[in-house]
Amino acid sequence: MHVIIDRNRMVHDVQHVAKAVSSRTTIPILTGIKLVASQNGLTLTGSDSDLSIEAFIPAVENEQELVQIQKEGSIVLQSKYFSEIVKRLPGDTIDIQVHDQFAATIRSGSSVFTLNGLDPDEYPRLPQLKEELIFSIPQDMLRNVIRQTVFAVSTQETRPVLTGVNIETDEVGLICSATDSHRLALRKAKVEKGSEDLHFQNVVIPGKSLQELSKILEDTSDSVEIVVTENQILFKLGNLLFFSRLLEGKYPVISSMIPNQSKTSFVLKTKPLLQTLERALLLSREAKNNVINLKTISSDQVEITSTSQEVGKVTEQIDAEQFDGEELRISFNGKNIIDALKVIDSDEIRIMFTGAMSPFVIRPLDSDHYLHLFSPVRTY
Amino acid sequence: MHVIIDRNRMVHDVQHVAKAVSSRTTIPILTGIKLVASQNGLTLTGSDSDLSIEAFIPAVENEQELVQIQKEGSIVLQSKYFSEIVKRLPGDTIDIQVHDQFAATIRSGSSVFTLNGLDPDEYPRLPQLKEELIFSIPQDMLRNVIRQTVFAVSTQETRPVLTGVNIETDEVGLICSATDSHRLALRKAKVEKGSEDLHFQNVVIPGKSLQELSKILEDTSDSVEIVVTENQILFKLGNLLFFSRLLEGKYPVISSMIPNQSKTSFVLKTKPLLQTLERALLLSREAKNNVINLKTISSDQVEITSTSQEVGKVTEQIDAEQFDGEELRISFNGKNIIDALKVIDSDEIRIMFTGAMSPFVIRPLDSDHYLHLFSPVRTY
Repeated sequence: MHVIIDRNRMVHDVQHVAKAVSSRTTIPILTGIKLVASQNGLTLTGSDSDLSIEAFIPAVENEQELVQIQKEGSIVLQSKYFSEIVKRLPGDTIDIQVHDQFAATIRSGSSVFTLNGLDPDEYPRLPQLKEELIFSIPQDMLRNVIRQTVFAVSTQETRPVLTGVNIETDEVGLICSATDSHRLALRKAKVEKGSEDLHFQNVVIPGKSLQELSKILEDTSDSVEIVVTENQILFKLGNLLFFSRLLEGKYPVISSMIPNQSKTSFVLKTKPLLQTLERALLLSREAKNNVINLKTISSDQVEITSTSQEVGKVTEQIDAEQFDGEELRISFNGKNIIDALKVIDSDEIRIMFTGAMSPFVIRPLDSDHYLHLFSPVRTY
Repeated sequence: MHVIIDRNRMVHDVQHVAKAVSSRTTIPILTGIKLVASQNGLTLTGSDSDLSIEAFIPAVENEQELVQIQKEGSIVLQSKYFSEIVKRLPGDTIDIQVHDQFAATIRSGSSVFTLNGLDPDEYPRLPQLKEELIFSIPQDMLRNVIRQTVFAVSTQETRPVLTGVNIETDEVGLICSATDSHRLALRKAKVEKGSEDLHFQNVVIPGKSLQELSKILEDTSDSVEIVVTENQILFKLGNLLFFSRLLEGKYPVISSMIPNQSKTSFVLKTKPLLQTLERALLLSREAKNNVINLKTISSDQVEITSTSQEVGKVTEQIDAEQFDGEELRISFNGKNIIDALKVIDSDEIRIMFTGAMSPFVIRPLDSDHYLHLFSPVRTY
């Protein structure tokens, strides 16, 4: 193999592919990035076996030569070194030449690196997916969907299926949900169907995969094509393919959890509420349970309090609007509410309670395509 | 005690004072910030007993009322909570009122915090210094002096005196030096004498203190007044006093270490050399000894190489100018040279060798008030 590649494009694509490589893998070949040079261009692959990313750099793109192929071939180079080296090379192009014994010489400007590589034939093949269930969604919207759900996945491995975001179809499009059993984030999204009969459920994507995908997604309305199979999901972003394993297990049925009526409800301004809770959390964090108390004190004010035996107490009154229903005292995990408020783009939210011991709902006032559900905390 | 303070100024000053407070102290009272309200204003103090910072907020400054004193008094409040709370308070002013049992109520906007405090009489007194040895230096210059020396102090507690920066006077001004016994950074600085007879030596300021001081120094030519005593140093920055304990022990005599002739010398461009060494370090870092080799290959080129048995090899040739003397091969700790190049502001440096086994010097080409000295590494 002998190729000369545009440095900027190489840096960009190696950085993406390296996201799939884990330094903690037990399979030595997976610490590397696979390079395959064909007449059409150069393909880079990184994988930790759960997650695989493949980037293709075409020989020519928009009349610009990106890869000059002197000789076809392939090699696997240690991601840790290769990606750092590529980033710091001084020239405009990178010349990579593979010798016997899987050694590669990398030349750029005045720099000459010789790296020990690994046998590319040992590198596992990427899954071949049956492209039956296909849909598309703009990159920026997908990024928003991930941002508004993935924070709520469980970090505990006791119920592995809860460490992922569940996606399923309804009449209109996609329903995405994440829960750690104390809070739930639900987000609906319209999609463009690629298959005529687009129906699926219990497709659970690992939260970690979505976080990595989110870093690659750009702020553009260009489409991502998504292919769903029984145990894999594939995101196609132009010349980049992002594969993730799906989580096994039955995801809980979400629709039955969401109360469809309320005993007490009012409207609050999102940002002031967030700041009040952040202040209250300064004390409750110490007690390690993040407990914050809310009490209605009139038809246009609620009181937020938090107490730490050791440190002290905080009390704050905030203005409420459109108060409806009974008086209420309730305690909750303040950090969970803060996490949700941070991803709500609306200036105002409606908060709906069904009693001091029942789950409650926060919805943005100007949108009905997402909501957050929380369990209260018993304080006695 | 009851005071109403301008919030912005309070946030600014509490942030500075909190830098002296260590969460790992074994003396409970030192986890707090001491507040003392007098008719003139409010004094804040933080200390970890090695380092103490005192900030004074005057009642009135530039015709603006900063502190309204309702009642004199004092209190100690836990730094961890107090500094976070102050930062997040919603109002323009902060009302602090102290009750019995060392409890304080903090009001700002809609927020009311009640914090458990500590007895201010238990708080240790700051040292009273004899102001005999006094000099001044502009803030921005002092910040530069710290930046160009403190990185070279030792991080090992085996020779505690080397964890500090040594300052001493000569005819012209100040000589500051830092060494971990493998490399040395030396910086001279002109100062304005505040005492007629300004002579001292072996004044060793802990590196940690200077790093904290550096964060407080601003990019202004306003003077810092410095008072030196036998075991304390005091930096006066307007309304802020910064005290540091000095390190005990005999600091090595630096002047005798610096070779005053060279067998091989040449001029290199600082930034390209830095980048070349950073690339070479990508491989030598793995071997954990950071060894990089340098070889003169002609009168206008040197070769930098680094080898890691496991990973591979890197070779790079860089242009040299004003070559003078013998051919040379030498090995050194690349990270030490990189650290020094990062704080050299000159575009070009002169590097002077006295043999493959002797210390060598790097000087900026356009300035003679600082230099860096390095021991070579024996590779066989």
